[in-house]
Amino acid sequence: MKIENVLIVDPLIGEFTGDIITEGKTICDIIPHDCNYERIVMPGFADVHTHAFEKIDTMNASKEDFEKWSKKNFEHGVTSLIPTTVSASKEDILKVIENIKFCGTPIEGLHLEGPFINPEKKGAQNPDYIRNPSVDEIVEITPDFVRLITMAPERPNFYEALKYLQKKNIKVSIGHSGAGYDMMEKAYLNGADRITHFPNALNQLHHRDISGTGSAMLLDFNVELICDGIHSSKEFIKLTYKIKGSDRIILITDSMEAAGLNDGKYSLGGLDVYVEKGVARLKSGNIAGSTLLFDKGVKNFYEFTGCSLKDLSKVSSYNALKDLNIENKGRIKIGYNANFVVLDKEINVQETIFEGKTVYKK
Amino acid sequence: MKIENVLIVDPLIGEFTGDIITEGKTICDIIPHDCNYERIVMPGFADVHTHAFEKIDTMNASKEDFEKWSKKNFEHGVTSLIPTTVSASKEDILKVIENIKFCGTPIEGLHLEGPFINPEKKGAQNPDYIRNPSVDEIVEITPDFVRLITMAPERPNFYEALKYLQKKNIKVSIGHSGAGYDMMEKAYLNGADRITHFPNALNQLHHRDISGTGSAMLLDFNVELICDGIHSSKEFIKLTYKIKGSDRIILITDSMEAAGLNDGKYSLGGLDVYVEKGVARLKSGNIAGSTLLFDKGVKNFYEFTGCSLKDLSKVSSYNALKDLNIENKGRIKIGYNANFVVLDKEINVQETIFEGKTVYKK
Repeated sequence: MKIENVLIVDPLIGEFTGDIITEGKTICDIIPHDCNYERIVMPGFADVHTHAFEKIDTMNASKEDFEKWSKKNFEHGVTSLIPTTVSASKEDILKVIENIKFCGTPIEGLHLEGPFINPEKKGAQNPDYIRNPSVDEIVEITPDFVRLITMAPERPNFYEALKYLQKKNIKVSIGHSGAGYDMMEKAYLNGADRITHFPNALNQLHHRDISGTGSAMLLDFNVELICDGIHSSKEFIKLTYKIKGSDRIILITDSMEAAGLNDGKYSLGGLDVYVEKGVARLKSGNIAGSTLLFDKGVKNFYEFTGCSLKDLSKVSSYNALKDLNIENKGRIKIGYNANFVVLDKEINVQETIFEGKTVYKK
Repeated sequence: MKIENVLIVDPLIGEFTGDIITEGKTICDIIPHDCNYERIVMPGFADVHTHAFEKIDTMNASKEDFEKWSKKNFEHGVTSLIPTTVSASKEDILKVIENIKFCGTPIEGLHLEGPFINPEKKGAQNPDYIRNPSVDEIVEITPDFVRLITMAPERPNFYEALKYLQKKNIKVSIGHSGAGYDMMEKAYLNGADRITHFPNALNQLHHRDISGTGSAMLLDFNVELICDGIHSSKEFIKLTYKIKGSDRIILITDSMEAAGLNDGKYSLGGLDVYVEKGVARLKSGNIAGSTLLFDKGVKNFYEFTGCSLKDLSKVSSYNALKDLNIENKGRIKIGYNANFVVLDKEINVQETIFEGKTVYKK
């Protein structure tokens, strides 16, 4: 495949015009040259925190459902997908693993959000299933296919669990946590250097204990951001970009089953969720995941922050993949996977190319 | 006067070794040369927000008291001092102006903290005297000697008052305010670009309205900081330095009459204040000014942030003076006032030089 006369955006090299040539699943040549362009080619998007999409929910999806989900996501430029569980019984988590483990790319693995979190910061997680970690249970629910687990460092046995998971190359992300600065710093220094849907379900910044929110700002944590303008305001996104820079932000959707569908009554982890004007809430009023589509989040980030396309390719793809040690993806470079999203100048998805083949065209 | 073989720290040029030669009140030559040094020479410190010191209180000090206060402050390296009122009746504010207006340097003017603030964010200000601004009253209480006034932008008539004060070259600083982001942005865009004792008595950062605290972080406000480790934590100071950089921070003491004295019962703006272990509080528990000495605040900032000496000279002198358009002070440069603080390598004051004369020596 030859993609000609486009603006190529690589997260490390930056922007230049030219052609990309692929062979099989791989980028085999890049030819920079001056040209006018209408299309922008960036590495395909990576969504590493998404619970559900158009009524397909990680917690009860079949292998076929996951494949359908992956295909539908090509419409939104996503070429790396990590479905995400909610707090559930061990049996239910093992069932998800059974259904997903033989799915190939674009599904890159599984993200376990909970169950080892703080019930006081549960957000829309079902408190019936929130519990303390034990290394025995963690061994059972983290076969190789699990890439990422969201945990609260204040839970007993956290550091034992962390050590085990680090050896297995499974990333621990801090989330749904009431940790203050000291505890956050300890977790960070022990290598838990990632934050789930920052700053939702963390303690707020206070000037006498900067807590979870402030620690994420002060220390070099990688932070997930839901860029829907609902989970946090436009100004909070701008502030996060100002503080963290483009290297530490990972855009996610955190989407639930109403994503891509209309307002109405839905479900998340066994809890009823009411979607009104695209905002998903529990009866209590707690925000319950998002209805955000990945490409919309990318466009929002671009508009809110005024960032460069180079930075946009970091937060929408490269950072998420690097953070999880997923190799050969997230750059436009010879030898890398030929996963691209093709955008117009207004950052609308025009085409998605996955492993060297067009899988979506507007 | 010749100051030989010292490390010279200028806030714009940086650090270099050499000699400084003064003539009268002025720096007349600077001779850079390689040498070993024991002493560090920085521009004399500026404290632009201080209510009182060793029982001398701005609200009832005589001309002689102000002169005594200025002299005592030389021990702490301060060569520019701006005593600060609290919310009080018009008559009491006019009385302060009568007593202070003929004081010469190091007193550079007066800071009015209140009375046009938000009673819901009063902190340790006496609510009996908090009121709406009127341009008529502002005209009366801001003769030329007033440099700075702390106000809340949510008060009626704020923008009328701001316009009048800007024409008079009197700086408006936002403080004791419950403003949200939109109001903070409006005030900033209208030129009220300074924050009083950040982030105390502002609304906390929230991710759905970043409010006063977050606005100060996002926009290019200059922010006063009380670096006592009590008004805000060490980590908050580090975070502020990370976000705002060295050009936007102004160290202050916000000291009340117990500064320099022992624990006990004191007073601030007609309210009883109890000082325990150096922390001043109202009966309600609200922090009521500080007992911080300026040099201690400078040393704390240096230790908390690990900043360079160049940055330290900005936050302790240059920024405060530049913000108030006070000329020829705050740098070590030919033609500038010969106001210096001489420090040892542990940032302890060894000597203070004011207008070319040694006024304190350890």
